[in-house]
Amino acid sequence: MLQLYIGNKNYSSWSMRPWVLMKQAGIAFEEVMVHFDTFDAGSNFKKTIEAINPVGRVPVLVDGGIVVYDTLAICEYLAESHPDKALWPRDKALRAQARSVCAEMHSGFGALRTHCGMNIEADLREQGRIILRDQPQVRADLARIVQMWSGLLQAHGGPMLFGEFGIADAYFAPVCMRIANYGLPVPEEVSAYVARIRALPGVRAWIDEALEEKRFVVMDEPYRASR
Amino acid sequence: MLQLYIGNKNYSSWSMRPWVLMKQAGIAFEEVMVHFDTFDAGSNFKKTIEAINPVGRVPVLVDGGIVVYDTLAICEYLAESHPDKALWPRDKALRAQARSVCAEMHSGFGALRTHCGMNIEADLREQGRIILRDQPQVRADLARIVQMWSGLLQAHGGPMLFGEFGIADAYFAPVCMRIANYGLPVPEEVSAYVARIRALPGVRAWIDEALEEKRFVVMDEPYRASR
Ligand SMILES: N[C@@H](CCC(=O)N[C@@H](CS)C(=O)NCC(=O)O)C(=O)O
Ligand SMILES: N[C@@H](CCC(=O)N[C@@H](CS)C(=O)NCC(=O)O)C(=O)O
Repeated sequence: MLQLYIGNKNYSSWSMRPWVLMKQAGIAFEEVMVHFDTFDAGSNFKKTIEAINPVGRVPVLVDGGIVVYDTLAICEYLAESHPDKALWPRDKALRAQARSVCAEMHSGFGALRTHCGMNIEADLREQGRIILRDQPQVRADLARIVQMWSGLLQAHGGPMLFGEFGIADAYFAPVCMRIANYGLPVPEEVSAYVARIRALPGVRAWIDEALEEKRFVVMDEPYRASR
Repeated sequence: MLQLYIGNKNYSSWSMRPWVLMKQAGIAFEEVMVHFDTFDAGSNFKKTIEAINPVGRVPVLVDGGIVVYDTLAICEYLAESHPDKALWPRDKALRAQARSVCAEMHSGFGALRTHCGMNIEADLREQGRIILRDQPQVRADLARIVQMWSGLLQAHGGPMLFGEFGIADAYFAPVCMRIANYGLPVPEEVSAYVARIRALPGVRAWIDEALEEKRFVVMDEPYRASR
């Protein structure tokens, strides 16, 4: 059985992508949760992950003797092993476009990721307002998201970015979380897509389990005493 | 005929990857060089690239009506369209491993990329010494490169990272340039790999054309008056 190593559901945006992809596509797997800590050398998180992946980050997918790390490589591995699920679009041109936007997400949107860390259970709308006011790069990242999603939804007719649900939607699911939690202003067709993503059973399951988590990460929320 | 939009060969590390991949694998293409400038909105570079790719960055691959951007998506597109070339390893486990290290490069090694920008024709060994002394993150990035390459060369027996030349080698070719130009200290088996990469005809062609370029990028080398 496939095993997926992940971090806390409330915070780990990279873990969310392959987890949601597999849940939503109906690919069976065993979840191995490794709780976030300080990430210091020798910490429990680092020791546990480094035992299987020298890079020491989640997500990691283990398929018998095969260890795949880094989200995009994991998604390609799943797409290849489950051709029947069409995790990438079946059409060659759409597939190239879907891979382009995922690779863009994989290496980009640094300002949005830095300033608006994923935190599913928190109401950060006040923070979102201030971040948007003060951070031109976050505004630029959000503008590119809006341009991309509006264009894709219009070109392919929805309901997902390339018609049916696939890797691209899983890749942007954590961005949908941020738009909701930080109350980032987006046009109607984009907020409707965010709502559709949040309503997918695979995403709903992740959100519900994130809300049930009792742990919080001191490093991310030093002001917090309990949850 | 495939068209590949690239930036100046001396500086554009992302452009180098698919160019070297196609040259070395014998995939015919037409090169479209768009010289780097200030990258300001409305600059010639931005106007030219944005006309085909809203993200405004190179490389971009154009195949008739299909536009693929972002290096990893371009490499996947080429692998898919040329199954005979085995651009990814034919073995499933090796392919997963090759995709993992490429995805790691695609989103990582930020310190090495920031502090040791590619500059093929320059002797930057003095700068390299100072950067390594002062930047612990560059030391960490280099240590990970050494760990990765030594491990792969040993596991698969060389001469390339996964036996024969493929996407992973193209992905790390700009890192080989940096190790050489900045004189970064690496163990014997790693410098032998760097030398083998530099000697590949596809890489040699890129280096020779970089050395012939007469332009330099003012933004990157403000101290420079001519080349
Ligand atoms: N490029 C990686 C990024 C993975 C990543 O940054 N994961 C975070 C959790 S969301 C992590 O494990 N951080 C631990 C650390 O940075 O030490 C991927 O796509 O998988
Ligand atoms: N993730 C992109 C990165 C591409 C990239 O950053 N390209 C640089 C040249 S090496 C560029 O076009 N820069 C223009 C800019 O940043 O405005 C890819 O893999 O293609």
